Amino acid sequence: MRRLYHQPLSPFCRKIRLVLAEKKIEVELVEEKTWDRRIDFLRLNPAGKVPVLRVDELVLAESSAIFEYLEEVYPDPPLLPRTAAERAEARRLEGWFDDKFHHEVTANLLYERVNRRLARSGYPESARIKEGAKNIKYHLDYIGWLMEGRRWLAGDQMSIADFAAAAQLSCLDYIGDVDWNRSEPLKEWYAKVKSRPAFRSLLADLLPGFTPPEHYADLDF
Amino acid sequence: MRRLYHQPLSPFCRKIRLVLAEKKIEVELVEEKTWDRRIDFLRLNPAGKVPVLRVDELVLAESSAIFEYLEEVYPDPPLLPRTAAERAEARRLEGWFDDKFHHEVTANLLYERVNRRLARSGYPESARIKEGAKNIKYHLDYIGWLMEGRRWLAGDQMSIADFAAAAQLSCLDYIGDVDWNRSEPLKEWYAKVKSRPAFRSLLADLLPGFTPPEHYADLDF
Repeated sequence: MRRLYHQPLSPFCRKIRLVLAEKKIEVELVEEKTWDRRIDFLRLNPAGKVPVLRVDELVLAESSAIFEYLEEVYPDPPLLPRTAAERAEARRLEGWFDDKFHHEVTANLLYERVNRRLARSGYPESARIKEGAKNIKYHLDYIGWLMEGRRWLAGDQMSIADFAAAAQLSCLDYIGDVDWNRSEPLKEWYAKVKSRPAFRSLLADLLPGFTPPEHYADLDF
Repeated sequence: MRRLYHQPLSPFCRKIRLVLAEKKIEVELVEEKTWDRRIDFLRLNPAGKVPVLRVDELVLAESSAIFEYLEEVYPDPPLLPRTAAERAEARRLEGWFDDKFHHEVTANLLYERVNRRLARSGYPESARIKEGAKNIKYHLDYIGWLMEGRRWLAGDQMSIADFAAAAQLSCLDYIGDVDWNRSEPLKEWYAKVKSRPAFRSLLADLLPGFTPPEHYADLDF
């Protein structure tokens, strides 16, 4: 029995769903409204966060720990490059998007616009939305800059770095907050990731009350 | 040439310093005042954060990526357990302290009290300090609870989980913000980590203008 506790617009859940799908690991998806602080869920993960992956009696939490587990146990196809130095670069970028991008952009835009409404925790703070809208620009430019010299974000090979970045960005794209026209290399990179079969189930998710823009699920946006 | 760009009271730098010392990897320490946003440093790590580890021409950033690199290239002594499931537990706790503890506690206490003064970025916000002081209690209790059934935080073996937790806590202990008497298992765990030879250089660091409490460097606190 494999079960992933998740939320449709959680970037960390999307990262793990991409990894699972790319490695062709079937999993039952269970939506968990973490803001309800359900006691049985807190027993699985006292941090109260998704994703949580349950494999029979084994309970895994923290998306980077879940990823490393999956990479070790299901190495095919690899989502980390071959040498230790290249792996460090892939993990550096995974950390960049999980931590820096998430706090500077996703927390300000997505959590203000969507999660507050879902959790009924007050109105969006416009100062934070402004901050997020300002910050996303230099992150998009950083992706564009990396992609001028690379085939994939961390180098020659598709890796966890691409999934970590695309997971955050696909959530923001759902609420129309990504300007893909900022640069050609940026847009080409996202088109490449988005056209992976692994991306399909993400793009099919709909959140009641929130309608994504028309280009959202379009592979030729 | 091995060089670590660091700050004395950065928990992520301390985590990597503990890993380096435990693996007996010698390194030159260079203090980097990240708030000055030195252009040559931003070229090494556009995220503008420490730690950054330079090994000849190779530049490594993001503490969890640096750790995984060191664990792969210098496997002795191992700081991850043997099975994939146990490794996932060690990495889950590394993530807990790097992310959850850091944002709920360290950012509220240490960054308000110390980093603001160092970076001359205004006065501490007392609401955040209160929040941090409230939050640290349940994290300390979580450590105590884990240690009731385990020899080390993630299980039978000392691991990156212990270093990630002790790195955050030793910074907070420097400013007197940790109540070690909350539980016996908590105190015994920290005494055990603190008495590692790897801990010595951390405890010897002094930050001008900030005097640690008497028990700070005392192994028998």
